[in-house]
Amino acid sequence: MKLTDQYKAAKYKFQGNGPRSIDTLKEALNSIQEDRFADLYGKGEIIEEFEKKFAVILGKESAVFMPSGTMAQQIALRIYADDKNNKKIAYHPLSHLELHEQDAIKILHGLETVLLGEPNRLFTIKDLMSVEENVGTLLIELPQREIGGYLPALNELEEIIEYARSKNMYTHLDGARLFESLPYYEKSPAEIAAYFDSVYISFYKGMGAVAGAVLAGKKDFIDKAKIWKRRHGGDLISLYPYIIAANYYYEKRKGVMSKFHEEAIELAKYFNDLPAVCTTPEIPMTNMFHVHADFSSDQLEKIVSKIFSEFDVSIAGGIKKIDEKTSKFEISIGEEFSKIPKELLKQVFGRLNEYIKVRS
Amino acid sequence: MKLTDQYKAAKYKFQGNGPRSIDTLKEALNSIQEDRFADLYGKGEIIEEFEKKFAVILGKESAVFMPSGTMAQQIALRIYADDKNNKKIAYHPLSHLELHEQDAIKILHGLETVLLGEPNRLFTIKDLMSVEENVGTLLIELPQREIGGYLPALNELEEIIEYARSKNMYTHLDGARLFESLPYYEKSPAEIAAYFDSVYISFYKGMGAVAGAVLAGKKDFIDKAKIWKRRHGGDLISLYPYIIAANYYYEKRKGVMSKFHEEAIELAKYFNDLPAVCTTPEIPMTNMFHVHADFSSDQLEKIVSKIFSEFDVSIAGGIKKIDEKTSKFEISIGEEFSKIPKELLKQVFGRLNEYIKVRS
Repeated sequence: MKLTDQYKAAKYKFQGNGPRSIDTLKEALNSIQEDRFADLYGKGEIIEEFEKKFAVILGKESAVFMPSGTMAQQIALRIYADDKNNKKIAYHPLSHLELHEQDAIKILHGLETVLLGEPNRLFTIKDLMSVEENVGTLLIELPQREIGGYLPALNELEEIIEYARSKNMYTHLDGARLFESLPYYEKSPAEIAAYFDSVYISFYKGMGAVAGAVLAGKKDFIDKAKIWKRRHGGDLISLYPYIIAANYYYEKRKGVMSKFHEEAIELAKYFNDLPAVCTTPEIPMTNMFHVHADFSSDQLEKIVSKIFSEFDVSIAGGIKKIDEKTSKFEISIGEEFSKIPKELLKQVFGRLNEYIKVRS
Repeated sequence: MKLTDQYKAAKYKFQGNGPRSIDTLKEALNSIQEDRFADLYGKGEIIEEFEKKFAVILGKESAVFMPSGTMAQQIALRIYADDKNNKKIAYHPLSHLELHEQDAIKILHGLETVLLGEPNRLFTIKDLMSVEENVGTLLIELPQREIGGYLPALNELEEIIEYARSKNMYTHLDGARLFESLPYYEKSPAEIAAYFDSVYISFYKGMGAVAGAVLAGKKDFIDKAKIWKRRHGGDLISLYPYIIAANYYYEKRKGVMSKFHEEAIELAKYFNDLPAVCTTPEIPMTNMFHVHADFSSDQLEKIVSKIFSEFDVSIAGGIKKIDEKTSKFEISIGEEFSKIPKELLKQVFGRLNEYIKVRS
C-alpha cells in the first residue's frame, strides 16, 4: 500500500487533520442553518464580511479573498514591480514561487528573481546586504517551509525589514503558515504582519479548511489586487464554498496552534532520540518539522510501512529522497496527533529503534 | 428596492434558476451520501472521473477542470500563440475576453487581438476574410452572448472554420453556453465541438451550478493547459466543491435545454407584441435573448418595479442604458420561468402594455 493510502487507512496518524474529504466542507456548510445569498464576483455579505474580518485580524487597511496563494503572491509581487518599475524580487531559494509554481512569476509576469543565501538555511541580513542588484521587493516566508519550518528571531526579522526599507524595497510576507508561527513569537497576527507592506495567509494548512487565501495590505494595493484577480481568472462568480470553510475552520482551530506547537516539540524529541535520525529544526518552531534519516527512501518507506502494518499508525504520508543514502519526510501536527495513546507512541518508537539498529 | 433585490424577493421570476445561494451547493453535496476523498492538485477520483466524462461528452482526447472560463480561455489562447509563435487572436468585438477580463489577454499574456465585424451582429466569413493581419487563432463564441445570443447557421460556421483552417489558424470555441445552443443546432456537444481544436464550457449559466469550467482538446494541449493552470494559481489543492456541483446540476439540467429554448421563444413573443419593445434575436436561438425598449433606463426601471410591486414578478434583474432614450435587459430562461402561471403572465403583459402606451 502506498504511503498516501496508508495515511488514509490508518487509525492513528502522526500528522495533519486527517484525510482531506468532502465531509470537511459538509461540516462547515451544515454549520450554517439558514440559506444565505451567494457572493457574486467579489460582492455580497459572505465575501465582504470575511475580507473585513481578516483585514482587522491582520491589521491592514484592506483584504481580498483569493482562490490560492499562488495567485495572491504573484499578484502582490506584480503590483509592486509595476509600481516601482523594478522587476527584481528577492526571496529564499526554496520559496514556493521558485519551486511549485511552474516559474509563473517569470513566465507569466516577466519578473526576475534574486535568491538569498543557501537553500538549507534561513537567509540572513548579510545575505540581503550582499545582493548587488537593485531589488524592488523582498518576500519573506514565515516559517520557511521547505527546510522544516525555521523562523528567524524577531530582532533578526526587524533588522532585515529595516534594511529592506532603507533600500526602498517593498516587503511582502508569505504567511502560508503565519498562524502556526504565532506561538513561537508570542505575537498577534497583526503584530507580525505590521513588519510588512502586505501579507498572504492560507486556510488549508494548520487550519485544515478546503482551499483559499487572503491577501491584505493598503487599500489602493488591494484595489489593484482585485483587478489582477480578475485577470488571473480568480474572480469566480462565487467563492463561498471556500470562504465558508475558511471561516469555520479558522474559528475552530485558531486557538489550537500552541497545542500543535507543543506536540511538535514532543514528537520531534522522540525522533531525535532514535539513532540515524534527526529533525530540522531540532526543536520545532511551529507545528511542523522535517525528519531526516540515514536511510535510502526505499529503506525508510519499508520501515514506515511495517509500523503501519503492526500498529495501524501512519508515520509519514510520503518520503522524499535526498540522495542514495539519505531521505526525509515532513510532519505537520494537526488534530490527529493527540488521538494517539501515549503508550502506543512509546511502543512505535521502541519498534522504530529496533528496526533502525538492525539496519544501521 | 434595487432590481437585483427584487429578483431575490419576487415570488415569480422571468429568468434564471433562482437567486444564487449556499443551498445550491448544499443540495449537490447532500446528494452524495458517503464521504469521498478530496481531489489533491488535479489528482484523485473526483476530478479525474469528471474530466474523463467531459472529454467524452465533448468528443475530445482530454479535458481539464478549471476554476473559471476566464482562466481556461486565456490559457488556451496562450498555448496556441506560443505554439505558432503568433500573438494574434481574432474574435468578436464583444467577446468576454474583450469586455470582462481587464484586458488580461493583452496585459498578462501579451497577446494581440483582432476584432471581427461589427459589435451589434455576428461576424461573417467576409469579416474574417477581410482581415489583413496574419491571425494565429480564431475564437468563436456560441451563442454570441452580448448581442442577445445569436448563433450562426451551421453551414456558415462550417465555412468560417474551413477558411480558418485553410489559413492555418487554431480554432477555439467559447462554449460558455454550448449546451444552451444544442436544441437550435439539433446536434450533440461533441458534434459542435468537433469543428474546433478546443472548447471551453461553463457550469453556472443554464446549468446553474456554483462556478467552474472545463477546457477540452488534444492530450498534449490539455497537458500544457494543466501547467498553465498551475501558473495562473488555478491548481487549487481541492476543486471538489465546484466539481460536485457541476456534475450534479449537469445531470439535473442537461435534458431541459430544449424546454428552456421553447420558453424563451414564448416569452420573446410576448415582448415583441408590446409597443416600443423588441427582442434580439426576434426568435431566440437559445434560452436567452435581449429586450430593447424605447425608454430611458430610469423609465424602464420604474415600469419593471411597478410590475414587481403589483404582481410579485421580477421581469429583469438589471437594466443597461444604451443611450438617453433607449435601454435593454437580458433574459436567460431557467427553472423559474415555468413556475409563472400562464394567466399571471398574460396579466403582467397586459399591464406592461398599458404602462408603455401611457408613456409612449
